[in-house]
Amino acid sequence: MSRFIKKRAKKVGLPPGSLVHIGETKTHKVTISILNYDETQLHEKEVTTIEECFSFKDKPNVTWIDIDGVHEVEILEKLGTCFGLHPLVLEDVLNTDQRPKIEDYGDYTYIVLKMISYNDKTNETIAEQMSLIIGSNFVISFQEKHGDVFDPVRERIRSDKGQIRKLGADYLAYSLMDTIVDNYFVIVEKMGERIEDAEEELVTNPTSQTLQSIHNLKKEMMFLRKSVWPLREVVNSLDREESALIKKTTLIYFRDVYDHTIQVVDTIETLREMLSGMLDIYLSSISNRLNAVMKVLTIIATIFIPLTFVVGIYGMNFKYMPELEWHWGYYTVWIVMVLIGVLMLIYFRKKKWL
Amino acid sequence: MSRFIKKRAKKVGLPPGSLVHIGETKTHKVTISILNYDETQLHEKEVTTIEECFSFKDKPNVTWIDIDGVHEVEILEKLGTCFGLHPLVLEDVLNTDQRPKIEDYGDYTYIVLKMISYNDKTNETIAEQMSLIIGSNFVISFQEKHGDVFDPVRERIRSDKGQIRKLGADYLAYSLMDTIVDNYFVIVEKMGERIEDAEEELVTNPTSQTLQSIHNLKKEMMFLRKSVWPLREVVNSLDREESALIKKTTLIYFRDVYDHTIQVVDTIETLREMLSGMLDIYLSSISNRLNAVMKVLTIIATIFIPLTFVVGIYGMNFKYMPELEWHWGYYTVWIVMVLIGVLMLIYFRKKKWL
Amino acid sequence: MSRFIKKRAKKVGLPPGSLVHIGETKTHKVTISILNYDETQLHEKEVTTIEECFSFKDKPNVTWIDIDGVHEVEILEKLGTCFGLHPLVLEDVLNTDQRPKIEDYGDYTYIVLKMISYNDKTNETIAEQMSLIIGSNFVISFQEKHGDVFDPVRERIRSDKGQIRKLGADYLAYSLMDTIVDNYFVIVEKMGERIEDAEEELVTNPTSQTLQSIHNLKKEMMFLRKSVWPLREVVNSLDREESALIKKTTLIYFRDVYDHTIQVVDTIETLREMLSGMLDIYLSSISNRLNAVMKVLTIIATIFIPLTFVVGIYGMNFKYMPELEWHWGYYTVWIVMVLIGVLMLIYFRKKKWL
Amino acid sequence: MSRFIKKRAKKVGLPPGSLVHIGETKTHKVTISILNYDETQLHEKEVTTIEECFSFKDKPNVTWIDIDGVHEVEILEKLGTCFGLHPLVLEDVLNTDQRPKIEDYGDYTYIVLKMISYNDKTNETIAEQMSLIIGSNFVISFQEKHGDVFDPVRERIRSDKGQIRKLGADYLAYSLMDTIVDNYFVIVEKMGERIEDAEEELVTNPTSQTLQSIHNLKKEMMFLRKSVWPLREVVNSLDREESALIKKTTLIYFRDVYDHTIQVVDTIETLREMLSGMLDIYLSSISNRLNAVMKVLTIIATIFIPLTFVVGIYGMNFKYMPELEWHWGYYTVWIVMVLIGVLMLIYFRKKKWL
Amino acid sequence: MSRFIKKRAKKVGLPPGSLVHIGETKTHKVTISILNYDETQLHEKEVTTIEECFSFKDKPNVTWIDIDGVHEVEILEKLGTCFGLHPLVLEDVLNTDQRPKIEDYGDYTYIVLKMISYNDKTNETIAEQMSLIIGSNFVISFQEKHGDVFDPVRERIRSDKGQIRKLGADYLAYSLMDTIVDNYFVIVEKMGERIEDAEEELVTNPTSQTLQSIHNLKKEMMFLRKSVWPLREVVNSLDREESALIKKTTLIYFRDVYDHTIQVVDTIETLREMLSGMLDIYLSSISNRLNAVMKVLTIIATIFIPLTFVVGIYGMNFKYMPELEWHWGYYTVWIVMVLIGVLMLIYFRKKKWL
Repeated sequence: MSRFIKKRAKKVGLPPGSLVHIGETKTHKVTISILNYDETQLHEKEVTTIEECFSFKDKPNVTWIDIDGVHEVEILEKLGTCFGLHPLVLEDVLNTDQRPKIEDYGDYTYIVLKMISYNDKTNETIAEQMSLIIGSNFVISFQEKHGDVFDPVRERIRSDKGQIRKLGADYLAYSLMDTIVDNYFVIVEKMGERIEDAEEELVTNPTSQTLQSIHNLKKEMMFLRKSVWPLREVVNSLDREESALIKKTTLIYFRDVYDHTIQVVDTIETLREMLSGMLDIYLSSISNRLNAVMKVLTIIATIFIPLTFVVGIYGMNFKYMPELEWHWGYYTVWIVMVLIGVLMLIYFRKKKWL
Repeated sequence: MSRFIKKRAKKVGLPPGSLVHIGETKTHKVTISILNYDETQLHEKEVTTIEECFSFKDKPNVTWIDIDGVHEVEILEKLGTCFGLHPLVLEDVLNTDQRPKIEDYGDYTYIVLKMISYNDKTNETIAEQMSLIIGSNFVISFQEKHGDVFDPVRERIRSDKGQIRKLGADYLAYSLMDTIVDNYFVIVEKMGERIEDAEEELVTNPTSQTLQSIHNLKKEMMFLRKSVWPLREVVNSLDREESALIKKTTLIYFRDVYDHTIQVVDTIETLREMLSGMLDIYLSSISNRLNAVMKVLTIIATIFIPLTFVVGIYGMNFKYMPELEWHWGYYTVWIVMVLIGVLMLIYFRKKKWL
Repeated sequence: MSRFIKKRAKKVGLPPGSLVHIGETKTHKVTISILNYDETQLHEKEVTTIEECFSFKDKPNVTWIDIDGVHEVEILEKLGTCFGLHPLVLEDVLNTDQRPKIEDYGDYTYIVLKMISYNDKTNETIAEQMSLIIGSNFVISFQEKHGDVFDPVRERIRSDKGQIRKLGADYLAYSLMDTIVDNYFVIVEKMGERIEDAEEELVTNPTSQTLQSIHNLKKEMMFLRKSVWPLREVVNSLDREESALIKKTTLIYFRDVYDHTIQVVDTIETLREMLSGMLDIYLSSISNRLNAVMKVLTIIATIFIPLTFVVGIYGMNFKYMPELEWHWGYYTVWIVMVLIGVLMLIYFRKKKWL
Repeated sequence: MSRFIKKRAKKVGLPPGSLVHIGETKTHKVTISILNYDETQLHEKEVTTIEECFSFKDKPNVTWIDIDGVHEVEILEKLGTCFGLHPLVLEDVLNTDQRPKIEDYGDYTYIVLKMISYNDKTNETIAEQMSLIIGSNFVISFQEKHGDVFDPVRERIRSDKGQIRKLGADYLAYSLMDTIVDNYFVIVEKMGERIEDAEEELVTNPTSQTLQSIHNLKKEMMFLRKSVWPLREVVNSLDREESALIKKTTLIYFRDVYDHTIQVVDTIETLREMLSGMLDIYLSSISNRLNAVMKVLTIIATIFIPLTFVVGIYGMNFKYMPELEWHWGYYTVWIVMVLIGVLMLIYFRKKKWL
Repeated sequence: MSRFIKKRAKKVGLPPGSLVHIGETKTHKVTISILNYDETQLHEKEVTTIEECFSFKDKPNVTWIDIDGVHEVEILEKLGTCFGLHPLVLEDVLNTDQRPKIEDYGDYTYIVLKMISYNDKTNETIAEQMSLIIGSNFVISFQEKHGDVFDPVRERIRSDKGQIRKLGADYLAYSLMDTIVDNYFVIVEKMGERIEDAEEELVTNPTSQTLQSIHNLKKEMMFLRKSVWPLREVVNSLDREESALIKKTTLIYFRDVYDHTIQVVDTIETLREMLSGMLDIYLSSISNRLNAVMKVLTIIATIFIPLTFVVGIYGMNFKYMPELEWHWGYYTVWIVMVLIGVLMLIYFRKKKWL
């Protein structure tokens, strides 16, 4: 549940722009890495104090400031003052239960999205909030934890692969978003495999465990959908609204991110629908099994209850019961009982119960 | 039910603008508190007659008139006359079953929203109607009962925390709305916990009590949704329509309220979907239990009914029954019966019923 | 069913504008009442021939012509000629299965809505078609039957209460619509009470009767929704489209009607959702009861079937059965059987069936 | 099924505009009837060759060419050449599985709609494709079979009833569409009656036959909806887009057709919802019956199984069983058994099973 | 599952425009066929190296380059350079799990759609990605595999049938899309037949196999819908947005493709709804069968259990049991038992269980 609802209660009543970190408490050291590059040169350094970033603010070439950890509030405060960020932006960076959204502040654009990873132990997807601040010559990215999916982007910048060094901050922002969205495919594929496993299990040996895992998968899909769905609107509005920060040639790339997002959303919807279908199958397989159980009971009971009645008759102690005196009485009864049994079996065969 | 439908019947047939209080009858004394402030000064007083408010109408600095209790109609009438409020606004303040809405009357904007609290005893959420009238230099707030969530706002004004003293009536209105929406998170978290409890119970020991509580939670969520959902449109239209009363710099803050509202609505939808999934689980767990019961019955019956038939045979009183005379007859029957029993058990094991 | 589909078959093939009354056949005499008023004077009369209305057409003050009964076609024809109504309007007045709608004909606006009443005997809601023709200085209202909810409006005009005498025909039209919509609240409250009763019954003693009444309530809600839902669009388009007939100051009042309509629609949706939830509860309560029945059967059968087998053994007539000769044999069997019974009971207790 | 999917396979791979008749093969002779009229005169003839129509093309008064049967491709080809119809229009006339649609070709407007009739033998609704080509002074109508619902329109033209002779080709087109839509009411009424019958049956004596007929009705409603639903958009776009072919005064009439279409669609939706509700009732009535069956079994079994055990006890052959020797033993056992039976009955009464 | 989610994982982290083939690995040789034509001449050749295509780029008449196989990345790279295609277009051609979409790049338009075929062995539909690049004088089509549905189009070009040789590249593109969409009808018809078969089976002899095939059909429909649904938007935006590449006269033809797409989507929706209805029928037929089984059990048990009790009574060994001494005791018991049996049967008949 904690994945669905984060504790905001402690923020209630504070003035807007109050910088309070909302989310899992974290203790690791915040790390800040800076990449400054243009077509001809590349500076890369890992800094320990946020002040070291400030000099890059007015450099003409592109600067990417990547901040791992948003739980140290002072870092954000200083950064906000230096780059002229609105208090509400800083507040949103700290509140890690934001919906993906985009906000245009003129000088910079603020984007929230979710980086999704998969915890193999708990079989749960985890969403980490990713904030991007895109300026004319810088991109600031905020992550909740160490470790991200951006290494390929860094590698591309370092080795000057593709066009990334030639293009501006908007293209860098695109590259980061594209990497995150591409990563969704990995997660969705993993979910697809788990659903396939559950479907297999459903056909071969459905247990209440299967139902539980269908239910869990449904919750995972709900969670994924919640994280990815609003992104559609975000990327779409980037494309629709003309922003001075995003060049026209870069817009085509954002359109590509839009397509990928739609595709992820589409696949999520398909998987959700498949899970619904699997629930129907599960329920009817329970009913089928009840039917099978009842048939066994009915066959045994309807064959033996009349026979038991018959032997009961000749167990009565009446003084005058002519059959008991007959020499072949006992055998006759046997013949009658076998006949009854055979007739019953024929009846069941006709009813297709056997 | 009374939470869903309030008695409006008594209003039918009255001319529009007729001031009749609709809602739970209340008897407490209406209290009126006034806060008048600007950057340099602060006047605060609790008044007993509404006339004392009138002098603040034309003061240039911001005045917040907070009225606790809307059941005394004359107070409203006088206030309406003084501040030039439309009769329909006064009527809506009194009708405490309004949907959240916004109406722009030029000189002032009228906003209805719901303050939600949680009654721990009945496990029900309660919605109290909150009316805001925003003028150029004043905010009038109407509540149904004593006790509200605005103390932090008052504190911020008194101690001059944040920017609230520097900004105008629109920012005050925003602060009030923000506080209310922030409070929704607390309620939603509480519902989330109750749903988590119900889910726990569903897995460990589902009873018809569990179903009842799922059903109640569903009704609570319906109620919450009904109270919060229309607020989206309200805050959105504030943002969309340009009003002279809301400054452009304050609009960014209202956009933040919009985001929070969307987030609350989103979480409510997620919780609703989870409750639906839980109902499916409950239903299939009933079916599963029926299956288990039937299996026990079937196992016992199919083992013992044939055996009873066998002992019935040798309870017959036929004169000529050779087996009865055999010395080992009794033991033979026992062996046969044990064999039948064992075969049955093997069959059930194969069918995975044991 | 007849409430959902009225016989239109007899109209098929007639030219448009053919005046044929569609609806329940009625035989009562059509009554026409005229109210002509302005701020200073008031004329009221009940006329018998439609021609008496014509003189009011060009009077400068407001005239309200209320016609009870639309089954006399000639009255309509004459009225149409005098007031210059389009043949399709007259046709729609006669076809009492119209959806609520609004049509702007320049000189006058034609509005259809539904007046809903509740038949306590059949427990059904009944919708009567109400047509309003709003001109610059007159309102013509058509009802299907005698008896309406307009008495309070008449009273307000007669006693000059509120502003109704001061304002024009548009305000009169608003007053009539407002009265009708206010009346919806009464109906919805009644439905809410019936749903509450059904819910009570569902918890205490659900029978197939309960299901039937849930189903009937659902149909009632469907019917209500069908009658009220389109009204939203009607009132909304009044507000949106600028009509010369509706003054700007009156528009605020129509907005109020819109709010009320939304509220009614909202409550109907809530009630529908509650009914859906009740159906789920009903179905699972049936399953629960089946479970309970099966448990009783299983407990009795699994205790006594083995015991019956045991006593059957010692009812066999084998010559050589050592136990039968034992002095304490009978008591031993009793002890064994009690033990079996007790073990079974312990098993059931462990399974939580007792 | 064939009603839902017509064989288009034979068209695959042909160039666009290829005139191939798609639909049920028909062999009847194509008949062509011409009505040429204005306010003062009327020419009516049934022609055998399509060439006879061509002279009417340029006459100033209104001509209605009604073609019964679209399976003779050459007729269409010639007509297309004479009236300058686009090959795709001719193709669509021949493909009788079109959705209702409207296409504006400047000189003429092409409308597809469905004429629905009811086959009393198979209890199925049948949709026949109706194509209308509306020019400035002519209307060409194509039907699949002989026999239509247009006789009243013809009669109105012949006898100069209503305004039809006074108004142009657009009014004629309206009259035809109106007649078709009016006819939908007849079909919907018939479906309503069948649903009412099924509902009656559901309450009195639900069998699996009832389920089958609910299912069939559902399919019928799906079919109807598919035929009628797109018509909304068609009539709406007539109203919205300004076409030189439709005069402003005629538009009011098309708005009327729109209203009727909405009403039909509305009723179809209502009926669909009712059928859904009936399915729920059916399913729960099955469950109820299972419950009833199980109760009978349980009552009989729980009363007699213990009693059979009791009599089994005294059927044992132990040498030393004191009760057997008692003089009143037999009667005592009877009393005990009666007591057990009565207690059981009281228990069942308490459980409300009796 | 692999049909729903293709492995994109290997692409994660690559720069945009990286040409990596995503989809089933294929090894067949890529074949390239060129058709260059205008009204008077026709050149057709199958080339082995992509360079041979380049000369056609600037020819004034229409060139259709059809490339079978997209797994050889170098071919695409060269083509892209020669025709000036955007790297993202090439990337999308290679990623064979695109949604149908359209992108306007000024000089050319890029369209993705799905060619669907039916695998008779696995009873699955297979979607092959089809990319179209439409320039002013050329169309490049990319397919994944050998074998397509375009032979009729080729034939039409060769034999100069229809207008294809007279019109430009836009008409060629239309012809290809039309052929693909026409082919959907064939697939949908095949699905319709399979659904009809399943429905037949459902009525005559529903097994859990039937459920499985309903479930599979549902998945097929989901898959089809996913492939066809977005095409609506594609063709619609072709119509809506004015592109210099598509002539106005050709637009009418694209409108026809739009109509066909809508029709396919419509039929898919209808089939989906029918499958849902079939699931309901299946579930209730299981319940019905359970009912039938239970009735047989109940009839047998309730008749014979009391009778067995009766015979048990007279099997007791009490010394003093007067009935045993009666001469007609045995016969009396028989009569009593027959009476009990007959009464039971009458009861069951009354309950309509027989």
